[in-house]
Amino acid sequence: MLSAKGYAAQTPEDALAPYDFQRRQMDDEDIQLEVLYCGVCHSDIHSARNDWGRTRYPLVPGHEIIGRVVAVGSKVSKFEVGDLAGVGCMVDSCRHCAACHDGDEHYCVSGPTMTYGAPDRKVPELLTYGGYSNNYVVAEPYALKVSPKADLAATAPLLCAGITTWSPLRFWKVGPGMKVGIVGLGGLGHMGLKFANAFGADVTLFTTSANKAEDAKRLGAHQVVVSNDKAAMQANMGSFDFILDTVSAQHDINVYLRQLRRDGTLCLVGLPDQPLALSSFATAARKVVTGSMFGGIRETQEMLDYCAEHGIGADIEMIKMAEINEAFERVLKSDVKYRFVIDMASL
Amino acid sequence: MLSAKGYAAQTPEDALAPYDFQRRQMDDEDIQLEVLYCGVCHSDIHSARNDWGRTRYPLVPGHEIIGRVVAVGSKVSKFEVGDLAGVGCMVDSCRHCAACHDGDEHYCVSGPTMTYGAPDRKVPELLTYGGYSNNYVVAEPYALKVSPKADLAATAPLLCAGITTWSPLRFWKVGPGMKVGIVGLGGLGHMGLKFANAFGADVTLFTTSANKAEDAKRLGAHQVVVSNDKAAMQANMGSFDFILDTVSAQHDINVYLRQLRRDGTLCLVGLPDQPLALSSFATAARKVVTGSMFGGIRETQEMLDYCAEHGIGADIEMIKMAEINEAFERVLKSDVKYRFVIDMASL
Repeated sequence: MLSAKGYAAQTPEDALAPYDFQRRQMDDEDIQLEVLYCGVCHSDIHSARNDWGRTRYPLVPGHEIIGRVVAVGSKVSKFEVGDLAGVGCMVDSCRHCAACHDGDEHYCVSGPTMTYGAPDRKVPELLTYGGYSNNYVVAEPYALKVSPKADLAATAPLLCAGITTWSPLRFWKVGPGMKVGIVGLGGLGHMGLKFANAFGADVTLFTTSANKAEDAKRLGAHQVVVSNDKAAMQANMGSFDFILDTVSAQHDINVYLRQLRRDGTLCLVGLPDQPLALSSFATAARKVVTGSMFGGIRETQEMLDYCAEHGIGADIEMIKMAEINEAFERVLKSDVKYRFVIDMASL
Repeated sequence: MLSAKGYAAQTPEDALAPYDFQRRQMDDEDIQLEVLYCGVCHSDIHSARNDWGRTRYPLVPGHEIIGRVVAVGSKVSKFEVGDLAGVGCMVDSCRHCAACHDGDEHYCVSGPTMTYGAPDRKVPELLTYGGYSNNYVVAEPYALKVSPKADLAATAPLLCAGITTWSPLRFWKVGPGMKVGIVGLGGLGHMGLKFANAFGADVTLFTTSANKAEDAKRLGAHQVVVSNDKAAMQANMGSFDFILDTVSAQHDINVYLRQLRRDGTLCLVGLPDQPLALSSFATAARKVVTGSMFGGIRETQEMLDYCAEHGIGADIEMIKMAEINEAFERVLKSDVKYRFVIDMASL
């Protein structure tokens, strides 16, 4: 067993607090990381507070992990001690189903092993504990290479917010000649703007906050539509090819379906904890509502490589580990531009 | 003006009763039909009772019309007096938008002119009145050719129930090697079974009524799954490529999303009057919820030609015009196998 220390929630009501725990010992195919940075994702809060009703405690959150390799198993070939590595939302899967075979490990039919709060696939009596901690042990096939050229703190959020927006934008082939909407300007939304712009689309931000317009344009939006401005919504009706909806709270998706052209696609990545109301009339012109959940390992690596090459990272605010509870409250108020990242040297 | 007689609802509460009214006079591009048969669609009931909140009264329902051509305008080229013709859910559209250009007139950006209850595009101060009547006037481009070989009464429901299931099954390329589900065994569902089977798919009926199994197999299902049988639903989880949901009442679509494989599609054609609850988790493996609304003229003609060639029609129960109110009640109780058709000689 490997001793680790981090911050954990012990119950849905508890604030996160220092916690000492054990991870599995490294095996032949594993690498061990010293965690350098960990992003703070809205899912960390949902999980810590059991909003989805399936949290196992104690919960050490964190799945936007950048670390330095401090040990490698004997069968490891991609990493050497001293290399940089990343860990995203999953750390294992069955490795033999059709989804795993296709590089869609995140859709593994038996379920991927999540980076925190899941039974460890190799030692099922242990839970996985996330990156709000000093170290991590991960099987090499589920670890990502991180370029030494990258801004490491700004790269951490790419492991969830980045790939969660990259994957659907790539899958639905967003590019030049397409009119694309991003709903919501938070951790996911700001990466959606950067990527959709980088891919050459005509990009619109839908937001409830008119005061985000200037920032949205800096991040890649060509237009900003305030979603409760009925005239502006009416003017764009039926014109969008693809809309990426990053909102994690309850909201009306039918208004965005009406923005789509015939055969357009609305992709949900926000995972609200309550069901959304879907009008069957809103989909009637073969309009698609779909969802997407982070991404596979191969596409995550492609995304990291692309970002390192193009100088793309998240816009972040660095915090100390002890500031995490305050940061959670600020995330819930959307008071962050646009992702908190924990400097793990502060632990 | 052309004098017509039929059956109309005068308010949401009224039963249908005999009604004399005026249609527009035929113009150069129109044909005039003597209505022979008209199918009874669930939408007729929703419209008569204003369930969708937009009915204009008096309402003469009926959009599954088979008739004989009794007059043709001077510019009509496809029809001669004495020919058979069909009219489906729409009778006009803008004729110049991208959707009309693509043969998707039913998705016309300014809205197609519905066969009943809509302002007549040529004489906007007149409403369109449906096929529960002795005659119909329709522009040639929106009329369908009907083969004299066809069983005319069984062909009437193809104009709505037929094309509404044919169009999505064709658009999403249902065929050999695909596992396809049909939800609900009513007017739409029984056509869905026939078509999906004819296209070579492996076809499953989802129903709440175990006693429909034998009939479903006769109509084309290879398997029947009772949707409240949790073990059967569990056994099929994640295995369907495409599911056509024909239910027009409130129901849980998330259970059908769970039946889909990664990247599978659930297409809604039932138009429930209240929104459906959509769990964002249920779509997360890029599963698609979409909708489809009857079909374009070209594909409707293809469907009719295919059905005439392959001997496909609806399973019908013939009624007299005066039995329509009783028929409405029986449709609401799902007590019809599987479509009522009015013999208009009884008017």
